[in-house]
Amino acid sequence: MWKIQWQDKKELSLARQIFLSLRERILAGQLAAGERMPSTRELAGSLGVSRNTVCEAYDMLLAEGFTVSRQGAPTRIARDVCLDYRSAGVATAPVKPEADRLLWDFATGRPDVTLFPWKLWSKMLGEAACQLSPGQWGYSSPKGYELLCGEIARWLLRSRGMLVEPADVFITAGATQAFYLLAGLLHKTGAPFVLESPSHPAMYTVITDRGYPVQWLEVDEQGAMIDTLTESAVSAVYVTPSHQFPLGGILPAGRRAALIRLARDNDFYIIEDDYDGEFRYAGPAISPLYSLDASHVIYVGTFSKTLFPALRLGFVILPKPLQEKWRHYRKYMDVQNPVLEQAALTAFLRTRAMDKHIRRMRRCYGEKRSCFLQAVQKHFADSVCPWGDASGLHVALQFPGAEFGERFVEESRAAGLGIRPVNRLCPSLHKQHRDKLLLGYGHLNAGKIQEGMSVLRRLMERGDYGYVTRGS
Amino acid sequence: MWKIQWQDKKELSLARQIFLSLRERILAGQLAAGERMPSTRELAGSLGVSRNTVCEAYDMLLAEGFTVSRQGAPTRIARDVCLDYRSAGVATAPVKPEADRLLWDFATGRPDVTLFPWKLWSKMLGEAACQLSPGQWGYSSPKGYELLCGEIARWLLRSRGMLVEPADVFITAGATQAFYLLAGLLHKTGAPFVLESPSHPAMYTVITDRGYPVQWLEVDEQGAMIDTLTESAVSAVYVTPSHQFPLGGILPAGRRAALIRLARDNDFYIIEDDYDGEFRYAGPAISPLYSLDASHVIYVGTFSKTLFPALRLGFVILPKPLQEKWRHYRKYMDVQNPVLEQAALTAFLRTRAMDKHIRRMRRCYGEKRSCFLQAVQKHFADSVCPWGDASGLHVALQFPGAEFGERFVEESRAAGLGIRPVNRLCPSLHKQHRDKLLLGYGHLNAGKIQEGMSVLRRLMERGDYGYVTRGS
Ligand SMILES: Cc1ncc(COP(=O)(O)O)c(C=O)c1O
Ligand SMILES: Cc1ncc(COP(=O)(O)O)c(C=O)c1O
Repeated sequence: MWKIQWQDKKELSLARQIFLSLRERILAGQLAAGERMPSTRELAGSLGVSRNTVCEAYDMLLAEGFTVSRQGAPTRIARDVCLDYRSAGVATAPVKPEADRLLWDFATGRPDVTLFPWKLWSKMLGEAACQLSPGQWGYSSPKGYELLCGEIARWLLRSRGMLVEPADVFITAGATQAFYLLAGLLHKTGAPFVLESPSHPAMYTVITDRGYPVQWLEVDEQGAMIDTLTESAVSAVYVTPSHQFPLGGILPAGRRAALIRLARDNDFYIIEDDYDGEFRYAGPAISPLYSLDASHVIYVGTFSKTLFPALRLGFVILPKPLQEKWRHYRKYMDVQNPVLEQAALTAFLRTRAMDKHIRRMRRCYGEKRSCFLQAVQKHFADSVCPWGDASGLHVALQFPGAEFGERFVEESRAAGLGIRPVNRLCPSLHKQHRDKLLLGYGHLNAGKIQEGMSVLRRLMERGDYGYVTRGS
Repeated sequence: MWKIQWQDKKELSLARQIFLSLRERILAGQLAAGERMPSTRELAGSLGVSRNTVCEAYDMLLAEGFTVSRQGAPTRIARDVCLDYRSAGVATAPVKPEADRLLWDFATGRPDVTLFPWKLWSKMLGEAACQLSPGQWGYSSPKGYELLCGEIARWLLRSRGMLVEPADVFITAGATQAFYLLAGLLHKTGAPFVLESPSHPAMYTVITDRGYPVQWLEVDEQGAMIDTLTESAVSAVYVTPSHQFPLGGILPAGRRAALIRLARDNDFYIIEDDYDGEFRYAGPAISPLYSLDASHVIYVGTFSKTLFPALRLGFVILPKPLQEKWRHYRKYMDVQNPVLEQAALTAFLRTRAMDKHIRRMRRCYGEKRSCFLQAVQKHFADSVCPWGDASGLHVALQFPGAEFGERFVEESRAAGLGIRPVNRLCPSLHKQHRDKLLLGYGHLNAGKIQEGMSVLRRLMERGDYGYVTRGS
C-alpha cells in the first residue's frame, strides 16, 4: 500500500515524489478518509530514504489538506478528498509539422533584419537597463513610457512634418494592438466599419470577430476610391493613404480632402495606418492625413518595418475624447508594454540612430527594388505591370488576363515559391484584383530575388493561368 | 501671397516648411484650384533659399496631389483640395498632476526589484540578442518562444511537481492578458463567471466590460467557499487556490476535490491564478489544482512577482480544445510577445538563476514579513488579526469592529500612507470584509515598514473607525 512509485524525473525531489505518490492514492480513494498514516520513521525505513525526506512529504500533504493532524495524535487522511482521478494532460500531443520550407519566400511585411544595427541596439538595451529606476520596473501607465512618447513626437515632426503633442501619443504592442483596441472603442451600433478592399487582414478580422458590420471601399492605382463611400452612418474608416496596402497607391489630395469632409460632416474617425511611410524612394515622405485634421484622424504607426516585427512596438495618436476609455481597456488587456524596449527605443530615436538607419535602409531597399523590377523586366518584359513600386518593401504585379486562385498557391508552393495572390486580401465579393500577385522583397537578397523571378516565370509558362508570357 | 511662415522648429527642413506653408494656403482655399504656381526660380529668389529647396517642396506638393503638372506646362493647384482647415491637436493638454507622493505605500503586488540580479539579466539579454536568428526577429508564433515554453514546463515540474507538456504552454503579456483572452474564450451565453469575493479586479473588469454576468463566491480563512457554489450552468470559475488574493487562505484538499467534481459534472473550466505561489514561508510550495485534473483546470502563471511587473511575461497552460481559438485571438490582438525578453528568460530558467533568485527572495521576503508582523504586534498587540501571512508579499489585517471606507482612504493618504481597505476588492454586496486592510510589504524596507505601522497606529487612535487600539 505504501509503496512509492519512483519516477524517472530527476527534476523531482524524493520528498515530492513521495507526496505525489501518496496524493494520487488519496485522490483515487485507495487511502480512505480517517485512515492513519504510517509514522515518518516507519515509512522512511521501508522506503530507504531519510526521515527528513518523509517529513517534508507529510508537510506537503498536511499543508494542502490531504491529511489532518492533531497535537499528539497520529496523522490521518482527511475527509472528502477522494476524486475519480484520471491522469490528464500527460499524453504527448502530435507535434505540428514544420511549415514547409520555401526557397523563395516573397512574403510581405518583412524588413531585412540582418542590416539592423544589433550591436548598437544591445548597447542601448544595456544602458536602458542601467538607467531605469526601480519604480519603472513596476507597473506603470498603460499609456507608455513618457520619454518615448516625446521622442516619437519629435521623430514625427522631423520625418513627416507632423505636429503632435506627446500627451496624445499612446504606445502599443504594434499596429495590430491599436486596431484591436480601436475596433472596440469606435464601434457604433449598426454603423459599419469601412475598409479598403484589398487590405491587411488584421483590421477586418478583429471587426468581424466581434460581429460588427464591414463595408468595402474599392481601391485603384491611387488608393481608396473615396467617392464610392455613400454610407453616412459609419463607425470608422480605415485607410492606408501614404502607401495603400497592398496595391501601393498614394491617396491624392483631392480624395484626402473629400474623406476629411465626410468625416467632419458625419462625425466619424478615420484610422490612418502609416505602416511603411519611411520607405519612399521617389521623393520626400508623404505627409499624413493626420496633418489635415488631427481631430478626425487617428494616426497609427509601427516600428515593425523600421526596426523589426518581434519588437512589438507601435503607437497611436489618439484624440482626447478617446483617451480615458483607451487607458481603461489597455490596462485590463495587458496593462502596458514591457519597459526595456521602450527605453532603448527612446535612446535610438534621441540619438538619431533611427534617422541614420532609415536612410541606410531606404538606400538598400531602393537597390532591392531596382533589382526586383529588373528581374520582372527580364522575365516578363512589359507584359506585366507593377503596382505601387514607388515605396515600401513590396510590389503588386498585374498579369493581364491571369486569374490566380488556390491552384496557383499550391503549384507555386510546390515549386518552392511563397507568393500570395492579391485577392486573398479582398474578402469582398468584387474580385477585380484576381490578376495580381503580391511580392515582398525587402528581406531577400539579389540572388534570391532573381532566382525567385525566374522560377515564377517558368511556373507562368507551364501553368495555365490565362496569362501569356512575353519575356525575353 | 507666397510669403512662407518660417517656423521656429529646427527639426523641420526648409523645404518641408515651404511645403507646409503652401499646403496650408491650398487647404484654406487661399490658393485656388487651377491657379498657377510661381516658378521654382522665382520663389527661391523671393524667399532667399536655394532653388533645390523649392524644387523639393514642389515635389512634395505634387506627390501628394496638391498640385498637378503636365510636361512643359506650369505647375497648377489641383482641384477639390480645399478644406475648411482648422489647426487642430496643437493646443497643449493640461498635464496630469503627478500621483500624490505617498511616504509609506503599502501597495500590493510589488516585488522588491532592487534585489533583482540586473547585471546577470542584462548579460542574458545581450547574449539572447546575439543568439537569435534573423527569422526570430520577424513575426513568429502567437504561442510564444518555443524554448521558453519548454523551460517553463521544466520549472513547473521542479518547483511545483507539475507535469506539463511544452505544447500546452502559451506565453502571455502577464496574467492580465491571459484573463482577458480567457473571458472571451470561455463565455457561454447566459452562464455567469464565478469569481472569489474579494478578488483581484482584472478578471472582474474584463468580464463586466463585455457585459457578461458574474456570480460571487464568498471567501473565508481557507479561501473560496466552494460549497456555496450552487449554480450549475457556469462559464468558468476563477480561483486563487495556492494563496487567495487578497485574504491569503490556502484552499484545502476537500474544497479542491469538490471544485473539480463540480467542474467535471457541469463541464466547465476552472481558471487557477497562481500569482505568487513561489513565496511560501512555512513549508514547501502548494501543489496546484492543475495537478488534480489538467483537463478541467487552466493554470495561469506570471513572472511579475518573481522577476518584475514591467517585464510583462506570464503564461497559461491551455487545454487542447481551446488552443486553436486562442492562437487566432492572440494573433489579431497583438500578434505575440516581444522575443528578446522571452529568450533572456529562457536562459534565466535554464541556468537555474531563477531558482537561486527565488530562494534568495523567499528568505528576504520572509524577513520583511517577520519585521511587518513584529511591527503589527508592537503597535496593535493581539487586537489585530493578520490573515494570509504564510506566503506572498502582502497581508490582510483585521481590525475587529472597524469599518474602513472612503474616509479612511482619504485620511490615510493625507498622512502619507497608501493602504487599501479589502472591501474595495469586493464588488459584491456582501461587505463582510469591511474590517480589513490590505498591506503589501514586499517592496518596502524594514524602516519604511516600521514607520508606516506607527503612522497607521496613530491614525487608528485618532480617527474613529470603530476600532479600539490596544497596542503597547
Ligand atoms: C498594412 C499593415 N498594417 C499594419 C501591420 C501590422 O504591423 P504590427 O502589428 O507589427 O505593427 C502590417 C504588418 O505587416 C501591415 O502590413
Ligand atoms: C491575484 C493577481 N493575479 C494576477 C495579477 C496580474 O499580474 P500580471 O498581469 O502582471 O501578470 C496580479 C497582479 O498584481 C494579482 O495580484
